[in-house]
This record gives sequence, structure tokens and C-alpha cells, in this order.
Amino acid sequence: MQKIVRSISTKFRLHQTSFQAVKCLNGQRNNEYKRNNYSFAGNIGVGTILATALYLEWSDDKNAVYAATAPSVQQKHVKEIGKFKENLPFYALEEVGKHTTVESGIWVTYKEGVYDITKFIEGHPGGDQILIAAGSSVEPFWVLYGIHENPHVFDILESYRIGNLNKEDAQHMTADMSDPYSSDPKRHPALKPASAKPFNAECPPSFLVESFYTPNELFYVRNHLPVPEIDPENYELEIYIEGKDKTRVFSLDELKKMPKQTITATIMCAGCRRSEMTKVKPVKGLNWGPAAIGNATWTGVPLREILKLAGVNEDDAKHQHIQFEGVDADVTGKMYGASIPIWKALDKRGDVILAYEMNGVPIPRDHGFPIRVIVPGVVGARNVKWLGKIVVAKDESDSHWQQNDYKGFSPSTDWDTVDFSKSPAIQELPVISAICQPGGGDTVQVQNGRITVKGYAWSGGGQKIVRVDVTADGGKSWHVAKFDHQDSALPPKHWAWTLWSAEIPVENNAKSVEIWAKAVDSCYNTQPESFENIWNLRGVLSNAYHRVRVYLKS
Amino acid sequence: MQKIVRSISTKFRLHQTSFQAVKCLNGQRNNEYKRNNYSFAGNIGVGTILATALYLEWSDDKNAVYAATAPSVQQKHVKEIGKFKENLPFYALEEVGKHTTVESGIWVTYKEGVYDITKFIEGHPGGDQILIAAGSSVEPFWVLYGIHENPHVFDILESYRIGNLNKEDAQHMTADMSDPYSSDPKRHPALKPASAKPFNAECPPSFLVESFYTPNELFYVRNHLPVPEIDPENYELEIYIEGKDKTRVFSLDELKKMPKQTITATIMCAGCRRSEMTKVKPVKGLNWGPAAIGNATWTGVPLREILKLAGVNEDDAKHQHIQFEGVDADVTGKMYGASIPIWKALDKRGDVILAYEMNGVPIPRDHGFPIRVIVPGVVGARNVKWLGKIVVAKDESDSHWQQNDYKGFSPSTDWDTVDFSKSPAIQELPVISAICQPGGGDTVQVQNGRITVKGYAWSGGGQKIVRVDVTADGGKSWHVAKFDHQDSALPPKHWAWTLWSAEIPVENNAKSVEIWAKAVDSCYNTQPESFENIWNLRGVLSNAYHRVRVYLKS
Repeated sequence: MQKIVRSISTKFRLHQTSFQAVKCLNGQRNNEYKRNNYSFAGNIGVGTILATALYLEWSDDKNAVYAATAPSVQQKHVKEIGKFKENLPFYALEEVGKHTTVESGIWVTYKEGVYDITKFIEGHPGGDQILIAAGSSVEPFWVLYGIHENPHVFDILESYRIGNLNKEDAQHMTADMSDPYSSDPKRHPALKPASAKPFNAECPPSFLVESFYTPNELFYVRNHLPVPEIDPENYELEIYIEGKDKTRVFSLDELKKMPKQTITATIMCAGCRRSEMTKVKPVKGLNWGPAAIGNATWTGVPLREILKLAGVNEDDAKHQHIQFEGVDADVTGKMYGASIPIWKALDKRGDVILAYEMNGVPIPRDHGFPIRVIVPGVVGARNVKWLGKIVVAKDESDSHWQQNDYKGFSPSTDWDTVDFSKSPAIQELPVISAICQPGGGDTVQVQNGRITVKGYAWSGGGQKIVRVDVTADGGKSWHVAKFDHQDSALPPKHWAWTLWSAEIPVENNAKSVEIWAKAVDSCYNTQPESFENIWNLRGVLSNAYHRVRVYLKS
Repeated sequence: MQKIVRSISTKFRLHQTSFQAVKCLNGQRNNEYKRNNYSFAGNIGVGTILATALYLEWSDDKNAVYAATAPSVQQKHVKEIGKFKENLPFYALEEVGKHTTVESGIWVTYKEGVYDITKFIEGHPGGDQILIAAGSSVEPFWVLYGIHENPHVFDILESYRIGNLNKEDAQHMTADMSDPYSSDPKRHPALKPASAKPFNAECPPSFLVESFYTPNELFYVRNHLPVPEIDPENYELEIYIEGKDKTRVFSLDELKKMPKQTITATIMCAGCRRSEMTKVKPVKGLNWGPAAIGNATWTGVPLREILKLAGVNEDDAKHQHIQFEGVDADVTGKMYGASIPIWKALDKRGDVILAYEMNGVPIPRDHGFPIRVIVPGVVGARNVKWLGKIVVAKDESDSHWQQNDYKGFSPSTDWDTVDFSKSPAIQELPVISAICQPGGGDTVQVQNGRITVKGYAWSGGGQKIVRVDVTADGGKSWHVAKFDHQDSALPPKHWAWTLWSAEIPVENNAKSVEIWAKAVDSCYNTQPESFENIWNLRGVLSNAYHRVRVYLKS
């Protein structure tokens, strides 16, 4: 039995009423993810609710990137929303609680407001997930998924207003609100948040090229949920092989006593550089710049050794995927989850490790303390943090993030036509590069007719960068960059990025130039030229040429 | 000892004089590739001659693609070149034979002409290889590398004319010429030659999409040298591990008795679709269309089993490459050669096999009878045909084709600045696709406002095609193609191409449209948009969007 402290759990103890409503709505199926020490306890029947959906991206095309919304505008709306409104009927919470089905109408409350959102269910970007609030307050969920605190979302909600909550119930509801993110760790102020709750942030790109190993404090953070507080003394990792009775359990101490391996690997978010793709046409997703990537050493136990101990046999056709489950949970008790194909986990060239150190120190809380899976060459989303459970399974993880996110689509696929089952979950990432110095809009000193440009390049799947080309004249002349730091690992086991620089000639007396960079990897794959033809509705795989306009001084 | 009949060898027996000249020039080092049954025998000192160079690409930028040169123009020049010229001195062959060094001047003959080519050595696209003709006739080499039979090459040669060969010697020289390609196999007339000698040809692209398995007779042929005639009864494969005394030898019968494996794999020439890149700026290379690719089943012995039998140990840092040597030899006795990294050869996911069957029948002569290495996911050039020898080595093959060809470069790298040692040998190929039906310039029937487009897509490294996008309006709307045939192998062991089709809407009353296709593989790598920024001097890796303009009839 695990005894991990979950910061999220106690705070929602008082909201069992809303979960109960959902239970009624969705039947009595037990949540297969429950563990006994969940304090929002018991039979939360979320089985039929669609997997936790686009929490961070509840938006429409006009207002896709919440991180860009000015805080002052948000504040104004925060104050107005859900206030008592004259000429509307009053409802008791008990009455609201009876409206949890389409037939009876689906009602929710926010502060003093009562809303009938029945007609909104289909339009909710987060899917049926919204039903979890049916018959009660949306507030705990909006606190959890802070992205909802957005004027546009408030407008939508207010348009469904049908009444006021009676005074007593309204006071009671409001008193219960608290912030599940309050025990998130302190972050370095250099990390620029793309969203605050959950915390998602990157450092200014110029820092990236200063060190081959990204300092932990500046390493981009991509959290989907509150950061769990885990007591390392009580940490346990469960390993379960589908079809077998026994679950194998490892303590942190046991893991640390096993033969360890250190790899240098770059981890990148699938949405890195999304902010450039957004300029073509809005996408749903955090407004990442080019620094949602970092390179570190990771020390831990090879996953294949753990799996061997647990009796996993690759040739068993029943088991084709390794599912990872974090202990970071949403309010339904559903953990963050993802999976990788079994070949990657068992291949000695796969180098998948259960890491407990990042750059030589225990993995910081934001990066998965005490154990994070490192799946080198593979999208960050599969490098599951706060690892709680490994399932050796026939199928991929059924988590939202494996099934309904982190997939690529054609530029002409929109939210009306998208079918997530038709695209494979992103695993290995394509080749990418970015210019980190100078930044866009910087003024650059021209020396001997040249400017200095620095950046990174990386490719997934263990491919090595073999060339970076840079131009300051729209491709008329390409200059091969010098590699300032590239490790010696051979493909297909080259997991680290390459830092490069180039001295590029610029036209005499030019006031400004646009610099482009593109990389080529050891499969001779190269980047697409522009975003128009790789645009996709989630703004992932944003690896077109990086183009930066800078001003020149002589 | 091998007893393979080599068609090329006997025909050049009489030209030992020129080889002797080279021996003097280049020292006495024995050719480490010699075998006792070479009929041009003995100590041919080619060790210091730079590796066999750009045989097929002796050209300059103005006239890069010989295959495109009109035969009638060639014929005219063929007749004029090397004829007796008045007012020039006569030289005896013996005298010519004394001019084999830069100090004495480097002289060659062609028919009745004597030429001092000293000043041309540096400019020869084939490098020092030209020195092999020093002091004697260039004719046997020009017969072997038929690409020289080009008006532009003749013009260059004639500009170095210094005299006439005396009549007796001229008659003697001419009588010795014969065609080393005369015993090449008969080919299907549907194969359109990109060069005749050596034979390089592809079928019309429209045939490719008619069958998931390309018929052997229509499978593109890419030969670097004459096709050897090999007696299967006497065929032997040598396996040599550097640093060990013993060479292991397998007969064809022994290989066939070992456990066999069948894979479906697409093989592609690095120059496939080069003819499109050439339009941006000329490149040196055969003028391949989109059909220098084919898909077949290959049956043979897993290479890793053979290597295990031979005692190869992957963890031995001394052996990092597996070199393959064909028995197709040039006039110096140098065989075609290439190598792959040892991990690919030993990995059970690598699926490298020594194939003796292609689509269920013995591999045809043009494709490597009796044994061809199939290195799935890897450029055709490493899939060595007529395999004679495997060397387990510390280094890559030192062959021309591994070191000085089949590499990618920046668009701004030209023949003055190129340094082949700076780029890695192409192994896994990047993602590519092509439209095969309709062909460029075809007139297409519009039905219900749509046209039907068919093609192939493929990616190296065992990556599977996950999507093909097609547009007929310059990318304003992209249509996801249907996969007509894709095998079920999972990446990174997906070796076969994908055949696709799409019904694309076209504008009402449009007279013509340009169709574009691009593919995305399981690493979500995609094709670059255009050739301008991937142009390279050898015209390899020509994988930009395929664009085909067609005419429409309603």
C-alpha cells in the first residue's frame, strides 16, 4: 500500500457532494485508479467520463492562448463573475444537485450564480469532463485548472446564467475554496510562466546556449496538474504485468541500490516553439517559445533491468506497451499517464531509465521527485514525472494525454473534423533547431561585416545532428554552423542536443536582417521551411525553420 | 580461394602497360583487394590512387546530366575525337609511356591523338583516378565509364591535344578495345536507362503504384560497374574479422541451408527524384525520376547469425563497422564497397539479411545474384550486390562510394569548397513521397469535381508513414490520402513503402492544377517544401514535396 502524501487530496474533501452527483450520473463503476489513501475517497464513478480532457486549452480560436491574456482584464472579470443578479430566481444547492443529467438539465454554480450548461456540454473543449461539476460548483475545478480564469470563459459561463444560489449555500461553497497549487515548489524567477496553475514555464532562450547542461532551476517545467508532495521514505513504485496476479513493489532505497546508469538526454515539450505556429492561425495550447527544451544528465536504474526482474518477456505478444502512471492526480483521482512501445523499454539501445538524479542532484520536485522516467529521444509527455506505477500492457495508456493529445494532424484538420484515434501518439520527435542568441528584435553589433548567431539543434529517436545551416539573406547563401558542444554518442543513441554558433556575413549598411536556421540529422531528415503547411490544431511539432529578425549596428 | 568468373577482367589483360605506369607513379604497394584469380593479375599498385572517383559524374555545372545529352550530338563528337590532325608532331607509344608524372608531364592517348593533360589533373571531377591512364590510352576507362562519351568531355580532351600517335601504335591500341558491359543481362524494355554503361534505369513511375511488390523486371537498377558473371556452384562468401587470422568462408549452399528470414523492404537510390533538384541548379549525377525506388520481399540469412557464427562480439570497441565488398570490380581490381555501423548488423531489430531471393525467385543478376546484402531502411548504396566479402572492421569502408559519394552537403557547398570527410555517409534515408499517377503533363478526367492521385511514401530507419497530405490548391487545403497498401510491421521495423491514393477536389473550370504531396513518418518528420534550400552538389536526398502539374478535362 502506498503512503504518498498527495497535496491535492485533502483540499477537496468537502466537495464529495459534487463527486457524488457524478457518481449518480455515471453509475457505480469503481475508479480503477483509486488507492485507499485518497482522501476524496471511495467509489468515485468517473469510469464513463471521458478521459481528462484539454484542461489547459479551453479556448476558442479567437482566444487560443490564455497565457497571453492581460492579468488586469482577468482581474476585472474575476470580480464580476458569479455575483448576485437581480430579477433571477433563487435556488438551493440541493435543488441544483438534482440537475445532473441531460434530461433534467445540467446545472452548475459559480459563487452566487446558478447556470444551466446543458447546451454547452457538446461545445466544451474539455469534453464530458465538465460533467464532474454537474449539480454543484465548478469552482474547485477552475481553481485546479487555472486556465479557466479567463474573460472569454467567464463570458461563456455567464451566458448560461439562470439564477442565484441561495445566500446560505453560496457562503458555504465559497468558504471551501482553496488552491491545490499552494504547495507547488518555489520557482526561479527567470522561468517565464506560460501558465501558472498548473505551472508551465521556460527560461529566456538566450540562457539555453550558455551551458550544454541546462541548470535544473532554468529547465523548462511542463506540469499538467499540481506538483505532488512525496515522502521519499514512503515512496513505492508498483509494477504490474497484465494477466499476472502479483504486483511487484520497489522502494526508493531499493531502486537506488540497483546498478545505475547515467545518460545525457535532451527533453522537449511537443509544443516547443508553438508561439510561432500560432502566428499562422491560432492553435490550442500553451504559448511556448523556443525554450521548452533542456538538456541534462539523468541518473537512475535502467528500466529494462526492472522489467527483467519483474519477469517481462518482450516476445510475449500480449504485452506491447509500457504504461507509466504519475502520482499527480486530478480531482477525480485520475493520474497523469502515458505509455511507450515495449521495444523502446527493453532495448539496450533504448536507454530508458527510472531517474532519481538530474544533473547530479536528486530530481527537483518540479521535474518528478523522487522518480521520473527518462525516455530519451521521445517527447517530454512520455517522460512521466512522479512515477507511481508501471503497467506492462497489451495496449497503450488510455490516458487523455496518450489518446487525445500529443498527436499530429494535417493542416486542414480542425476541431470539427479531428479524430484523435486516427493519428499515432507522438513518440520520437522530429529534427528541430532554434536561434537563441540574438533574440528577435535585438540589436546586434556587426563586426568585420559579420554577426554571431548561436542556438541549439536536436532530433528525436537518438539521431545526431550532422549539420546546421544558417542564412541571413533568405537562403541565397547558407553558412554551416560550428558545433560548440556535441557529445560523442553515436546514433541511434545520441540523446543530447547540439549547441552551435555561426558567424554570418550581413549586407553592408543593412538596418536589419532576418536570420534563419535549419538542422539536418543523421537520417538526413531536415526541418520544414515554414509553418503554413505543418500547422496543426494543437500546435505541436512546431519545427519549421527558426526565423529571427534583428537590428544591426556597425 | 574464390573462383568467381569476372567478366571485366579478361578484357583488359592487354592493358597492363598502363597499369604498370601507374604502379611506377604510385609506388609498389600491393592492392589489398587483389585476389589471385584476377586476370589483370599481380601487383597493381593502386593503393595510393584516390579511391575510385565520380565515374558517372565527370561533368561540369553546365552539363551535369549526361543521360540527358542527345545521342546524335554524341555520335558526331565520337567520330571527330582523336582523329589524325595535320601540323602536329608524331609520338610513339613508348614515348607517351614516359610521361606519367607531373614533372615529366602526364600524357594520354585517345585513338590517334596524344594529349598532355597535366594541367587538367586538378580539375578532373574523378580526382586522381585519371592517373591510371597516364602514359597510355584513356579508351578502356572511357568504355568502362561510358559517361565520358559526351561532347563536353571530348571538347575538354581535345583542348589538351599536343600530337598524333604514330600509325602503328594507333592501330595496335584501337584493336584492343572491347566492351566490358557486353555480358550484362538483358533488361526489360520498360526500364528507361539513366545511363547505359554502367546500366542504371527506372521504370515509368505510373507502374510503381500498380503493385505493392515491384516486379523484379521493373525494379530500378543502379549499377556502378559491369554486372559480374558468377557461377553459383563456385560462389564463396568470405568473412574476415580484423585482427584475426582466420577467414571464414561460406558457399551458397551453406548459406541456403541456414535458417532463413523473409522481409519486405523498400530499397531506394540516394539520387531518386534528382531530376527535380537539378532544375534549381545543375547537380552531378544520374538524372533519376521518382522511380529509383522499389519494394520487394527478400529472403536470406540474417547477417547477425552469420556474424555470430564467425565470432563477432558487438561490445568489442575495435569493431564498429561491417564492410561489404561486391565482386563487381573496376579495371584496377577495386571492388564496389560500402559499410554499415555494427549495431545495425547485429541488432535483431536491424533485420539485415544476406538475401538470395527477391520476390520469391533467385535474385536476378542485375540485383546482385547470387547474394545481395539487404540493409532495410538504409540507402541503396549500402545494400551491396554480388556480395563477395564481409569485413568486420574498426573503420568504415574506405571505398569511394562510402567516403566520397552518397553524402549530403549544404546548398552553398560547391565543388571548390566540398570536403567529403566533413559529412557522414548516408545510412538511413529521410522521409519521401511521390505522385506516380497522374504523371506531369498528363490530362486527367475530373469526376464529381475531383481527380484521383496515387503515389508512394516511405521513410528510412524503419519508420512507418503515418500520413500523406495532398493539395491541388497550393496548400490552401490539404487532403489526407487513403493508404491503399501498408504492411503491418511496427516502427522501427517498418521497412516497406506505403501506397496511397486521394480524391482531390479541383476548382471548377480550371484548365490545369499543380498537385503537391508530402508524407509524415512515425517520428513525425516531414518533407521539406522545396528544393532550393536542400540543394546539394551531388543531388542526393531529393525529398522535397513532389509537385506535378496536370491538365484537366471535365
